[in-house]
Amino acid sequence: MTVELISVGTELLLGNIVNTNANYLSKKCAELGLSLFYQITVGDNENRLIDTVKTAMSRSDIIILTGGLGPTQDDLTKEAVAKALGRKLVMDEHSRERILKYFDRISYDKQDNQIQKASAIASKALSKITDNNWKQALKIDDCFVIDNDNGTAPGYIIKENHKIIFLLPGPPSEMIPMFEQKMFPYLKETQQKVFISKMVKICGIGESRAETRILDLIEKQTNPTIAPYAKSGEVHFRITASADNENTAESMIQPLLKELMNRFGDNIYTTSEEETLEDVVVKLLQKQGLKLVTAESCTGGLLTGRIVNIPGASSVFTEGFITYSNESKMKYLGVDKKTLDQYGAVSEETATQMVKGAADTTGCEAALAITGIAGPDGGTKEKPIGLVYIGCYLKGIVTVREYRLRGNREKIREQSVIHALDLLRRCLMNMS
Amino acid sequence: MTVELISVGTELLLGNIVNTNANYLSKKCAELGLSLFYQITVGDNENRLIDTVKTAMSRSDIIILTGGLGPTQDDLTKEAVAKALGRKLVMDEHSRERILKYFDRISYDKQDNQIQKASAIASKALSKITDNNWKQALKIDDCFVIDNDNGTAPGYIIKENHKIIFLLPGPPSEMIPMFEQKMFPYLKETQQKVFISKMVKICGIGESRAETRILDLIEKQTNPTIAPYAKSGEVHFRITASADNENTAESMIQPLLKELMNRFGDNIYTTSEEETLEDVVVKLLQKQGLKLVTAESCTGGLLTGRIVNIPGASSVFTEGFITYSNESKMKYLGVDKKTLDQYGAVSEETATQMVKGAADTTGCEAALAITGIAGPDGGTKEKPIGLVYIGCYLKGIVTVREYRLRGNREKIREQSVIHALDLLRRCLMNMS
Repeated sequence: MTVELISVGTELLLGNIVNTNANYLSKKCAELGLSLFYQITVGDNENRLIDTVKTAMSRSDIIILTGGLGPTQDDLTKEAVAKALGRKLVMDEHSRERILKYFDRISYDKQDNQIQKASAIASKALSKITDNNWKQALKIDDCFVIDNDNGTAPGYIIKENHKIIFLLPGPPSEMIPMFEQKMFPYLKETQQKVFISKMVKICGIGESRAETRILDLIEKQTNPTIAPYAKSGEVHFRITASADNENTAESMIQPLLKELMNRFGDNIYTTSEEETLEDVVVKLLQKQGLKLVTAESCTGGLLTGRIVNIPGASSVFTEGFITYSNESKMKYLGVDKKTLDQYGAVSEETATQMVKGAADTTGCEAALAITGIAGPDGGTKEKPIGLVYIGCYLKGIVTVREYRLRGNREKIREQSVIHALDLLRRCLMNMS
Repeated sequence: MTVELISVGTELLLGNIVNTNANYLSKKCAELGLSLFYQITVGDNENRLIDTVKTAMSRSDIIILTGGLGPTQDDLTKEAVAKALGRKLVMDEHSRERILKYFDRISYDKQDNQIQKASAIASKALSKITDNNWKQALKIDDCFVIDNDNGTAPGYIIKENHKIIFLLPGPPSEMIPMFEQKMFPYLKETQQKVFISKMVKICGIGESRAETRILDLIEKQTNPTIAPYAKSGEVHFRITASADNENTAESMIQPLLKELMNRFGDNIYTTSEEETLEDVVVKLLQKQGLKLVTAESCTGGLLTGRIVNIPGASSVFTEGFITYSNESKMKYLGVDKKTLDQYGAVSEETATQMVKGAADTTGCEAALAITGIAGPDGGTKEKPIGLVYIGCYLKGIVTVREYRLRGNREKIREQSVIHALDLLRRCLMNMS
């Protein structure tokens, strides 16, 4: 079946944001074995939008629209699709209820007394909901409404003589979960062939080097296919096999998967689509019943921020230090003044004392410390921008690694975080 | 004049690469004041490409195509455009020469002895040039050829009854310099008008609420125009005026800018395109010569991570605490066990003690503390997921605010960071 993507939003045409939704949905269509022939981006203009939808209807089986479902004046997607299909917009009570509930929470804000009747809350909420929000409770006549658990604008699935139209909200944080949970399974069922894919996630090796290492596999690929995806500091390879049933597809993937395992060994941290590097590290800590403490200098909280983003991180993480100045490194981590004077804050010696100090003062069995020069200033001939030392402490054993990273301040900090997580992963698996 | 972008490449439709060319060219068109109405991405398929070009010709004044100019079989852009316009492809001697020279260089690389006869080089080069390379010396009849200084595929400018068609190579490293040096100046000359725009950045108020407040301005907009852009936790409005010269455009923006200032007052944190909320906060701290300390619970370092991402943050930030557990809140921030037992970790009382404690133990004149329930677990009826308390300490005065945030764990944490930065901003400007 053929798919057409329509991204709606003047901000895309003005170049204010990059169209990552189109890239995400393209990958998903490829994963499903759907033929995507056209990606269209059109602004918040009703007539152009109607034309675009009609053209798509004339040449594609499945049409996926993203954006323009919000409450504001220039959110026109639903209205335009309705007109293109010659359908009415009708009030959807269920959506209306959800919007009301959604705003209930805010109405609490100004309440001193938390105990009150639902009706009172409701009326209070109503009074706070601006009229334009009710626009989001309107649905196209005779369609499935898909609840939005991360925003107020629902999604929609519309069937029109053998064609399927999907309407999804624009913000990736709303669009992606909705597509994953509702649209993806729905599309999967429309496909006769089964597609199984594995994501091989690699860190500690650059993209081009990783790709050269399996160039022969990439060149002779047919089914299963193998496609690289670069991610800041990581490389992901997706292996996809298509067959009549899951077992066959699964068994077709195995040899290639094994081959990648052989070639990349412990650089592979997972083969699961969902699992992130921090997931793996937190699970390893949980399994080994260890608590982690962090001490960050140049990354200033980014590392810990990623660990804490995992639900249940509290079982392995209780505290962390952001020691940006030399004084704070001495005060909280017990780094010697002598060490700082003699070797500098960005040195193997300081990293060692930082990570030992963090472990000692908190009694944690695992610790990570990062100190480096992220730039744009502070680089010297001996200690250039991008020089980073990462210390890992595990049950008394300290491992420190030196890294020379490239890119701007943000990139250097991001890569430092990934290297730190990877170093701890290796130590936890006795691979360092 | 209206523009249409056509990106050619199956790799885009498979999601193997993100279409950054479209984003770059969109920005440039906006800069030139050209109206970009459609962005199309189509694969390396001649018929679909011909249809796409014909449609574009029928509705747009300027058509910019990128990609599909290379030497390989599936590079079809030039061929498709020629067919769409009913023109022939003819050999371009100048391009042929350049391709020859280009491969000379490569042949040089392989030579140990650099001194040798040109003829020898030429023959050597020729022997190395595969036939498909000569494809790149073909041009569409009666067009301007634009040399490619960073690759072998030239660009083209074609005029067809009052319409202009640009063909550019796909790799950004070749496309961007070519566009900057040749196409941009060419397009600039076709534009008489100058465009000036200001970005009004607002926080502490939702998108739909912000828009309702200026609906009248949005509805009656002509020149200058006003367009809203939602950003997690913030709302941005872009005001754009076009005139014959910069001064006129600038002066046309002022009244509308002043009106927005009146309506949003201290919700506006900047009117500069580049300036972020953390920039503003760091600058205010620098101006007032204050040092900031952070104490983060549910955000686990995200707040500090954003502050430290600003070059020179060290002048205002030296240390921070990530106190995820109750114990760490007591140990490092001196929060009373009684307070935690009686009111809980997520409470106004705990936030107050966290921020005071952070300031006291470090002697900083400014402090921020965040404690909240980011979910997915840990929510109760009285303390639902999304309940966040943010404390701000400034020269002895403590301000604590309660927030009821929506969305998933990540969103709640992001919004908490923005509210914290905004609260400090307001305190620093005596607006809290």
